Amino acid sequence: MTKTLVIASHPNYQHSLSQRFFAESAKIPGVTLHFLDQLDQFILEDELALLADCDRLILQFPLYWYSVPAKMKAWIDTIWTEAKPLLTGKEIGFAISTGVAAKEFQLGGNEQISFNEILRPQLRMAQKYHMTVLPLIVLDQFMYKTETQKRRFVVDYQQLLTMPYPFSFDQKQQWFADRLNSLIEVKPQLAPLLTQLEENRELIQDLDEALHSLEESL
Amino acid sequence: MTKTLVIASHPNYQHSLSQRFFAESAKIPGVTLHFLDQLDQFILEDELALLADCDRLILQFPLYWYSVPAKMKAWIDTIWTEAKPLLTGKEIGFAISTGVAAKEFQLGGNEQISFNEILRPQLRMAQKYHMTVLPLIVLDQFMYKTETQKRRFVVDYQQLLTMPYPFSFDQKQQWFADRLNSLIEVKPQLAPLLTQLEENRELIQDLDEALHSLEESL
Repeated sequence: MTKTLVIASHPNYQHSLSQRFFAESAKIPGVTLHFLDQLDQFILEDELALLADCDRLILQFPLYWYSVPAKMKAWIDTIWTEAKPLLTGKEIGFAISTGVAAKEFQLGGNEQISFNEILRPQLRMAQKYHMTVLPLIVLDQFMYKTETQKRRFVVDYQQLLTMPYPFSFDQKQQWFADRLNSLIEVKPQLAPLLTQLEENRELIQDLDEALHSLEESL
Repeated sequence: MTKTLVIASHPNYQHSLSQRFFAESAKIPGVTLHFLDQLDQFILEDELALLADCDRLILQFPLYWYSVPAKMKAWIDTIWTEAKPLLTGKEIGFAISTGVAAKEFQLGGNEQISFNEILRPQLRMAQKYHMTVLPLIVLDQFMYKTETQKRRFVVDYQQLLTMPYPFSFDQKQQWFADRLNSLIEVKPQLAPLLTQLEENRELIQDLDEALHSLEESL
Protein backbone atom coordinates (compact mmCIF):
# COMPACT_ATOMS: atom_id res chain seq x y z
CA MET A 1 0.00 0.00 0.00
CA THR A 2 1.23 3.51 -0.86
CA LYS A 3 2.44 5.36 2.24
CA THR A 4 1.30 8.93 1.96
CA LEU A 5 2.46 11.90 4.01
CA VAL A 6 0.26 15.00 4.03
CA ILE A 7 2.07 18.19 5.02
CA ALA A 8 -0.68 20.67 5.88
CA SER A 9 -0.57 24.32 6.88
CA HIS A 10 -3.34 26.79 7.59
CA PRO A 11 -2.67 29.99 9.58
CA ASN A 12 -6.22 29.88 10.94
CA TYR A 13 -6.81 26.16 11.16
CA GLN A 14 -8.93 26.24 14.31
CA HIS A 15 -11.54 28.33 12.55
CA SER A 16 -11.25 26.88 9.09
CA LEU A 17 -14.08 24.60 7.97
CA SER A 18 -12.16 23.60 4.84
CA GLN A 19 -9.13 22.66 6.95
CA ARG A 20 -11.27 20.40 9.15
CA PHE A 21 -12.80 18.93 6.01
CA PHE A 22 -9.34 18.14 4.61
CA ALA A 23 -8.19 16.68 7.93
CA GLU A 24 -11.28 14.45 8.29
CA SER A 25 -11.00 13.25 4.69
CA ALA A 26 -7.38 12.20 5.27
CA LYS A 27 -8.27 9.78 8.09
CA ILE A 28 -7.79 6.67 5.95
CA PRO A 29 -5.32 3.76 6.07
CA GLY A 30 -1.85 4.52 4.76
CA VAL A 31 -2.11 8.28 5.26
CA THR A 32 -0.16 10.30 7.85
CA LEU A 33 -1.27 13.90 8.43
CA HIS A 34 1.43 16.28 9.63
CA PHE A 35 0.11 19.67 10.60
CA LEU A 36 2.77 22.39 10.61
CA ASP A 37 1.04 25.24 12.45
CA GLN A 38 1.01 23.32 15.73
CA LEU A 39 4.82 23.34 15.74
CA ASP A 40 6.75 26.34 17.02
CA GLN A 41 9.82 25.34 15.07
CA PHE A 42 10.89 22.41 12.96
CA ILE A 43 13.31 19.74 14.12
CA LEU A 44 15.08 18.79 10.93
CA GLU A 45 15.64 15.13 11.90
CA ASP A 46 11.96 14.61 12.75
CA GLU A 47 10.79 16.11 9.49
CA LEU A 48 13.29 14.11 7.46
CA ALA A 49 12.23 10.88 9.22
CA LEU A 50 8.64 11.50 8.09
CA LEU A 51 9.78 12.08 4.51
CA ALA A 52 12.02 8.99 4.52
CA ASP A 53 9.04 6.84 5.45
CA CYS A 54 6.63 8.00 2.70
CA ASP A 55 6.16 7.10 -0.97
CA ARG A 56 3.91 10.04 -1.75
CA LEU A 57 4.09 13.59 -0.43
CA ILE A 58 1.00 15.83 -0.48
CA LEU A 59 1.28 19.55 0.25
CA GLN A 60 -2.12 20.78 1.44
CA PHE A 61 -2.65 24.50 2.05
CA PRO A 62 -4.83 27.54 1.37
CA LEU A 63 -3.45 30.04 -1.13
CA TYR A 64 -2.06 33.10 0.63
CA TRP A 65 -1.15 35.89 -1.75
CA TYR A 66 -0.70 33.55 -4.70
CA SER A 67 1.63 31.20 -2.86
CA VAL A 68 2.07 28.84 0.08
CA PRO A 69 1.42 30.28 3.57
CA ALA A 70 4.52 31.55 5.44
CA LYS A 71 4.61 28.53 7.77
CA MET A 72 4.78 26.11 4.85
CA LYS A 73 7.49 28.26 3.23
CA ALA A 74 9.42 28.05 6.51
CA TRP A 75 9.10 24.25 6.35
CA ILE A 76 10.31 24.24 2.74
CA ASP A 77 13.23 26.56 3.52
CA THR A 78 14.20 24.36 6.47
CA ILE A 79 13.98 20.89 4.97
CA TRP A 80 13.88 20.87 1.17
CA THR A 81 17.63 21.01 0.55
CA GLU A 82 18.36 18.21 3.04
CA ALA A 83 15.40 16.17 1.80
CA LYS A 84 16.87 15.62 -1.65
CA PRO A 85 17.96 11.96 -1.25
CA LEU A 86 14.71 11.14 0.60
CA LEU A 87 12.39 12.60 -2.03
CA THR A 88 14.14 11.90 -5.31
CA GLY A 89 11.87 9.93 -7.62
CA LYS A 90 8.89 9.89 -5.23
CA GLU A 91 5.39 11.21 -5.95
CA ILE A 92 4.13 14.68 -5.01
CA GLY A 93 0.67 16.21 -5.11
CA PHE A 94 -0.83 19.58 -4.26
CA ALA A 95 -4.22 20.06 -2.58
CA ILE A 96 -5.00 23.75 -2.36
CA SER A 97 -7.97 25.74 -1.14
CA THR A 98 -9.09 29.27 -1.88
CA GLY A 99 -11.95 31.52 -0.88
CA VAL A 100 -12.14 32.83 -4.44
CA ALA A 101 -14.01 30.92 -7.18
CA ALA A 102 -11.62 28.75 -9.23
CA LYS A 103 -12.92 30.30 -12.48
CA GLU A 104 -11.39 33.67 -11.48
CA PHE A 105 -7.89 32.18 -11.81
CA GLN A 106 -7.57 32.62 -15.57
CA LEU A 107 -7.25 35.28 -18.26
CA GLY A 108 -10.15 37.69 -17.85
CA GLY A 109 -10.98 36.41 -14.38
CA ASN A 110 -10.59 38.64 -11.33
CA GLU A 111 -7.29 37.00 -10.37
CA GLN A 112 -5.85 36.79 -13.94
CA ILE A 113 -3.14 34.37 -12.80
CA SER A 114 -3.63 30.58 -13.22
CA PHE A 115 -3.00 27.86 -10.62
CA ASN A 116 -0.19 26.59 -12.85
CA GLU A 117 1.51 29.98 -12.70
CA ILE A 118 0.94 30.23 -8.95
CA LEU A 119 2.44 26.80 -8.29
CA ARG A 120 5.32 27.17 -10.75
CA PRO A 121 7.98 27.52 -7.98
CA GLN A 122 6.65 24.42 -6.17
CA LEU A 123 6.48 22.49 -9.44
CA ARG A 124 10.11 23.40 -10.10
CA MET A 125 11.08 22.22 -6.59
CA ALA A 126 9.50 18.86 -7.41
CA GLN A 127 11.03 18.60 -10.88
CA LYS A 128 14.46 19.30 -9.44
CA TYR A 129 14.14 16.03 -7.49
CA HIS A 130 12.64 14.12 -10.45
CA MET A 131 9.36 13.68 -8.59
CA THR A 132 6.18 12.51 -10.31
CA VAL A 133 3.62 15.31 -10.05
CA LEU A 134 0.05 14.10 -9.42
CA PRO A 135 -3.04 15.91 -10.74
CA LEU A 136 -3.75 19.18 -8.90
CA ILE A 137 -6.77 19.38 -6.58
CA VAL A 138 -8.47 22.71 -5.81
CA LEU A 139 -11.14 23.21 -3.16
CA ASP A 140 -12.65 26.61 -3.88
CA GLN A 141 -15.31 28.40 -1.83
CA PHE A 142 -15.94 25.48 0.50
CA MET A 143 -18.79 27.28 2.28
CA TYR A 144 -20.89 27.41 -0.88
CA LYS A 145 -20.50 23.71 -1.76
CA THR A 146 -23.53 21.39 -1.70
CA GLU A 147 -23.34 18.08 0.17
CA THR A 148 -22.99 16.24 -3.16
CA GLN A 149 -20.11 18.47 -4.24
CA LYS A 150 -18.40 17.92 -0.89
CA ARG A 151 -18.76 14.14 -1.16
CA ARG A 152 -17.34 14.24 -4.67
CA PHE A 153 -14.40 16.29 -3.44
CA VAL A 154 -13.69 13.79 -0.65
CA VAL A 155 -13.40 11.10 -3.34
CA ASP A 156 -11.06 13.27 -5.44
CA TYR A 157 -8.92 14.05 -2.42
CA GLN A 158 -8.78 10.46 -1.15
CA GLN A 159 -7.81 9.31 -4.65
CA LEU A 160 -5.00 11.87 -4.64
CA LEU A 161 -3.91 10.43 -1.29
CA THR A 162 -4.06 6.72 -2.07
CA MET A 163 -4.77 5.79 -5.71
CA PRO A 164 -1.83 4.31 -7.66
CA TYR A 165 -0.50 6.59 -10.38
CA PRO A 166 -1.32 7.15 -13.26
CA PHE A 167 -4.92 8.05 -12.45
CA SER A 168 -6.51 6.14 -15.36
CA PHE A 169 -10.15 5.13 -15.71
CA ASP A 170 -9.21 1.52 -14.88
CA GLN A 171 -7.35 2.67 -11.81
CA LYS A 172 -10.39 4.62 -10.61
CA GLN A 173 -12.68 1.60 -11.09
CA GLN A 174 -10.27 -0.55 -9.10
CA TRP A 175 -10.00 2.10 -6.38
CA PHE A 176 -13.79 2.18 -5.96
CA ALA A 177 -13.99 -1.63 -5.93
CA ASP A 178 -11.32 -1.80 -3.21
CA ARG A 179 -13.06 0.79 -1.09
CA LEU A 180 -16.43 -0.93 -1.55
CA ASN A 181 -14.89 -4.26 -0.53
CA SER A 182 -13.65 -2.75 2.75
CA LEU A 183 -17.08 -1.23 3.36
CA ILE A 184 -18.87 -4.54 2.71
CA GLU A 185 -16.93 -6.11 5.56
CA VAL A 186 -18.74 -3.66 7.85
CA LYS A 187 -22.00 -3.32 5.93
CA PRO A 188 -22.75 -6.58 4.06
CA GLN A 189 -25.97 -5.08 2.65
CA LEU A 190 -23.76 -3.06 0.26
CA ALA A 191 -22.66 -6.23 -1.58
CA PRO A 192 -25.07 -5.71 -4.52
CA LEU A 193 -23.32 -2.39 -5.25
CA LEU A 194 -20.06 -4.23 -5.81
CA THR A 195 -21.76 -6.71 -8.18
CA GLN A 196 -23.17 -3.73 -10.05
CA LEU A 197 -19.76 -2.08 -10.24
CA GLU A 198 -18.12 -5.28 -11.49
CA GLU A 199 -20.84 -5.76 -14.12
CA ASN A 200 -20.36 -2.17 -15.29
CA ARG A 201 -16.64 -2.70 -15.49
CA GLU A 202 -17.07 -5.86 -17.59
CA LEU A 203 -19.56 -4.10 -19.83
CA ILE A 204 -17.09 -1.25 -20.38
CA GLN A 205 -14.28 -3.72 -21.10
CA ASP A 206 -16.51 -5.50 -23.65
CA LEU A 207 -17.38 -2.20 -25.29
CA ASP A 208 -13.73 -1.22 -25.33
CA GLU A 209 -12.74 -4.51 -27.01
CA ALA A 210 -15.56 -4.20 -29.54
CA LEU A 211 -14.38 -0.70 -30.37
CA HIS A 212 -10.82 -1.95 -30.92
CA SER A 213 -11.92 -4.79 -33.28
CA LEU A 214 -14.03 -2.28 -35.16
CA GLU A 215 -11.05 0.06 -35.56
CA GLU A 216 -8.85 -2.82 -36.75
CA SER A 217 -11.39 -3.93 -39.35
CA LEU A 218 -11.66 -0.43 -40.84
CA MET B 1 12.55 63.60 -3.62
CA THR B 2 11.18 60.07 -3.92
CA LYS B 3 10.78 58.43 -0.50
CA THR B 4 11.86 54.81 -0.83
CA LEU B 5 11.26 52.00 1.63
CA VAL B 6 13.42 48.88 1.28
CA ILE B 7 11.94 45.76 2.88
CA ALA B 8 14.83 43.34 3.19
CA SER B 9 15.00 39.75 4.39
CA HIS B 10 17.87 37.31 4.55
CA PRO B 11 17.76 34.23 6.83
CA ASN B 12 21.53 34.40 7.23
CA TYR B 13 22.10 38.14 7.08
CA GLN B 14 24.96 38.25 9.58
CA HIS B 15 27.06 36.02 7.37
CA SER B 16 25.90 37.24 3.99
CA LEU B 17 28.34 39.41 2.05
CA SER B 18 25.70 40.22 -0.56
CA GLN B 19 23.29 41.32 2.20
CA ARG B 20 25.90 43.70 3.64
CA PHE B 21 26.58 44.97 0.13
CA PHE B 22 22.87 45.69 -0.41
CA ALA B 23 22.59 47.36 3.00
CA GLU B 24 25.64 49.58 2.44
CA SER B 25 24.47 50.56 -1.04
CA ALA B 26 21.12 51.67 0.37
CA LYS B 27 22.66 54.24 2.73
CA ILE B 28 21.65 57.23 0.59
CA PRO B 29 19.27 60.16 1.16
CA GLY B 30 15.57 59.36 0.78
CA VAL B 31 15.98 55.64 1.44
CA THR B 32 14.75 53.80 4.57
CA LEU B 33 15.99 50.24 5.06
CA HIS B 34 13.69 47.96 7.06
CA PHE B 35 15.25 44.63 7.87
CA LEU B 36 12.70 41.93 8.72
CA ASP B 37 14.86 39.20 10.23
CA GLN B 38 15.68 41.32 13.28
CA LEU B 39 12.01 41.32 14.26
CA ASP B 40 10.48 38.42 16.17
CA GLN B 41 7.03 39.33 14.99
CA PHE B 42 5.44 42.14 13.04
CA ILE B 43 3.36 44.88 14.61
CA LEU B 44 0.84 45.65 11.91
CA GLU B 45 0.53 49.36 12.77
CA ASP B 46 4.30 49.91 12.63
CA GLU B 47 4.62 48.19 9.27
CA LEU B 48 1.68 50.09 7.82
CA ALA B 49 3.13 53.42 9.06
CA LEU B 50 6.30 52.71 7.09
CA LEU B 51 4.31 51.91 3.96
CA ALA B 52 2.13 55.00 4.35
CA ASP B 53 5.23 57.20 4.36
CA CYS B 54 6.86 55.85 1.16
CA ASP B 55 6.39 56.51 -2.55
CA ARG B 56 8.41 53.52 -3.69
CA LEU B 57 8.58 50.05 -2.16
CA ILE B 58 11.57 47.79 -2.84
CA LEU B 59 11.51 44.12 -1.83
CA GLN B 60 15.10 42.93 -1.46
CA PHE B 61 15.80 39.26 -0.78
CA PRO B 62 17.75 36.16 -1.80
CA LEU B 63 15.80 33.52 -3.71
CA TYR B 64 14.93 30.58 -1.48
CA TRP B 65 13.45 27.67 -3.38
CA TYR B 66 12.26 29.83 -6.28
CA SER B 67 10.45 32.31 -4.04
CA VAL B 68 10.76 34.85 -1.22
CA PRO B 69 12.28 33.60 2.08
CA ALA B 70 9.77 32.48 4.73
CA LYS B 71 10.23 35.64 6.82
CA MET B 72 9.32 37.88 3.89
CA LYS B 73 6.32 35.66 3.14
CA ALA B 74 5.28 36.08 6.79
CA TRP B 75 5.51 39.86 6.32
CA ILE B 76 3.44 39.67 3.14
CA ASP B 77 0.82 37.42 4.76
CA THR B 78 0.61 39.82 7.74
CA ILE B 79 0.42 43.20 6.04
CA TRP B 80 -0.45 42.98 2.32
CA THR B 81 -4.23 42.83 2.69
CA GLU B 82 -4.32 45.78 5.10
CA ALA B 83 -1.78 47.72 3.04
CA LYS B 84 -4.07 48.07 0.03
CA PRO B 85 -5.06 51.75 0.47
CA LEU B 86 -1.46 52.66 1.39
CA LEU B 87 0.14 51.02 -1.66
CA THR B 88 -2.40 51.55 -4.43
CA GLY B 89 -0.79 53.35 -7.36
CA LYS B 90 2.69 53.50 -5.80
CA GLU B 91 5.91 52.11 -7.29
CA ILE B 92 7.38 48.70 -6.50
CA GLY B 93 10.71 47.13 -7.37
CA PHE B 94 12.41 43.80 -6.72
CA ALA B 95 16.11 43.40 -5.93
CA ILE B 96 16.95 39.72 -5.69
CA SER B 97 20.14 37.78 -5.14
CA THR B 98 21.07 34.21 -5.91
CA GLY B 99 24.11 32.00 -5.55
CA VAL B 100 23.39 30.48 -8.96
CA ALA B 101 24.50 32.19 -12.18
CA ALA B 102 21.66 34.26 -13.70
CA LYS B 103 22.09 32.50 -17.06
CA GLU B 104 20.89 29.22 -15.50
CA PHE B 105 17.41 30.71 -15.03
CA GLN B 106 16.13 30.05 -18.54
CA LEU B 107 15.15 27.24 -20.88
CA GLY B 108 18.07 24.84 -21.08
CA GLY B 109 19.77 26.32 -18.02
CA ASN B 110 20.18 24.27 -14.85
CA GLU B 111 17.22 25.99 -13.20
CA GLN B 112 14.94 26.00 -16.29
CA ILE B 113 12.57 28.52 -14.64
CA SER B 114 12.93 32.27 -15.41
CA PHE B 115 12.96 35.14 -12.89
CA ASN B 116 9.67 36.30 -14.41
CA GLU B 117 8.09 32.95 -13.64
CA ILE B 118 9.58 32.92 -10.14
CA LEU B 119 8.27 36.39 -9.34
CA ARG B 120 4.86 35.91 -10.97
CA PRO B 121 3.01 35.72 -7.60
CA GLN B 122 4.72 38.91 -6.37
CA LEU B 123 4.03 40.65 -9.69
CA ARG B 124 0.37 39.72 -9.36
CA MET B 125 0.32 41.12 -5.80
CA ALA B 126 1.62 44.41 -7.19
CA GLN B 127 -0.73 44.48 -10.17
CA LYS B 128 -3.70 43.90 -7.88
CA TYR B 129 -2.92 47.28 -6.27
CA HIS B 130 -2.23 49.00 -9.62
CA MET B 131 1.41 49.53 -8.69
CA THR B 132 4.07 50.56 -11.21
CA VAL B 133 6.62 47.76 -11.45
CA LEU B 134 10.22 48.96 -11.81
CA PRO B 135 12.90 47.04 -13.75
CA LEU B 136 14.07 43.90 -11.95
CA ILE B 137 17.56 43.81 -10.47
CA VAL B 138 19.42 40.51 -9.98
CA LEU B 139 22.67 40.15 -8.05
CA ASP B 140 23.99 36.70 -8.92
CA GLN B 141 27.09 35.01 -7.51
CA PHE B 142 28.26 38.06 -5.59
CA MET B 143 31.47 36.35 -4.47
CA TYR B 144 32.71 36.03 -8.05
CA LYS B 145 32.10 39.67 -9.01
CA THR B 146 35.01 41.95 -9.87
CA GLU B 147 35.29 45.37 -8.20
CA THR B 148 34.12 47.00 -11.45
CA GLN B 149 31.08 44.74 -11.63
CA LYS B 150 30.26 45.50 -8.00
CA ARG B 151 30.52 49.25 -8.56
CA ARG B 152 28.26 48.94 -11.60
CA PHE B 153 25.72 46.99 -9.55
CA VAL B 154 25.73 49.67 -6.83
CA VAL B 155 24.76 52.19 -9.50
CA ASP B 156 21.98 49.93 -10.84
CA TYR B 157 20.66 49.36 -7.32
CA GLN B 158 20.83 53.00 -6.28
CA GLN B 159 19.02 53.97 -9.47
CA LEU B 160 16.31 51.43 -8.61
CA LEU B 161 16.07 53.08 -5.21
CA THR B 162 16.01 56.73 -6.21
CA MET B 163 15.77 57.43 -9.96
CA PRO B 164 12.44 58.83 -11.19
CA TYR B 165 10.46 56.42 -13.34
CA PRO B 166 10.55 55.65 -16.31
CA PHE B 167 14.24 54.77 -16.37
CA SER B 168 15.05 56.50 -19.69
CA PHE B 169 18.49 57.45 -20.99
CA ASP B 170 17.77 61.11 -20.17
CA GLN B 171 16.74 60.14 -16.67
CA LYS B 172 19.99 58.25 -16.15
CA GLN B 173 22.08 61.21 -17.37
CA GLN B 174 20.23 63.51 -15.01
CA TRP B 175 20.66 61.04 -12.14
CA PHE B 176 24.44 60.94 -12.66
CA ALA B 177 24.62 64.73 -12.91
CA ASP B 178 22.71 65.11 -9.64
CA ARG B 179 24.95 62.61 -7.87
CA LEU B 180 28.06 64.27 -9.24
CA ASN B 181 26.81 67.67 -8.08
CA SER B 182 26.45 66.36 -4.52
CA LEU B 183 29.93 64.85 -4.67
CA ILE B 184 31.47 68.10 -5.95
CA GLU B 185 30.29 69.86 -2.80
CA VAL B 186 32.63 67.53 -0.88
CA LYS B 187 35.32 67.07 -3.53
CA PRO B 188 35.56 70.20 -5.73
CA GLN B 189 38.34 68.59 -7.80
CA LEU B 190 35.61 66.45 -9.44
CA ALA B 191 34.08 69.52 -11.15
CA PRO B 192 35.67 68.79 -14.57
CA LEU B 193 33.82 65.46 -14.63
CA LEU B 194 30.50 67.29 -14.46
CA THR B 195 31.55 69.60 -17.31
CA GLN B 196 32.48 66.50 -19.31
CA LEU B 197 29.11 64.86 -18.54
CA GLU B 198 27.21 68.01 -19.54
CA GLU B 199 29.19 68.29 -22.80
CA ASN B 200 28.46 64.66 -23.59
CA ARG B 201 24.80 65.19 -22.88
CA GLU B 202 24.68 68.23 -25.20
CA LEU B 203 26.52 66.32 -27.90
CA ILE B 204 24.02 63.46 -27.65
CA GLN B 205 21.11 65.89 -27.77
CA ASP B 206 22.61 67.53 -30.91
CA LEU B 207 23.05 64.10 -32.52
CA ASP B 208 19.50 63.17 -31.58
CA GLU B 209 18.12 66.37 -33.14
CA ALA B 210 20.22 65.88 -36.27
CA LEU B 211 18.87 62.34 -36.57
CA HIS B 212 15.30 63.61 -36.26
CA SER B 213 15.75 66.30 -38.98
CA LEU B 214 17.33 63.69 -41.20
CA GLU B 215 14.36 61.34 -40.70
CA GLU B 216 11.91 64.14 -41.47
CA SER B 217 13.74 65.12 -44.68
CA LEU B 218 13.63 61.53 -45.99
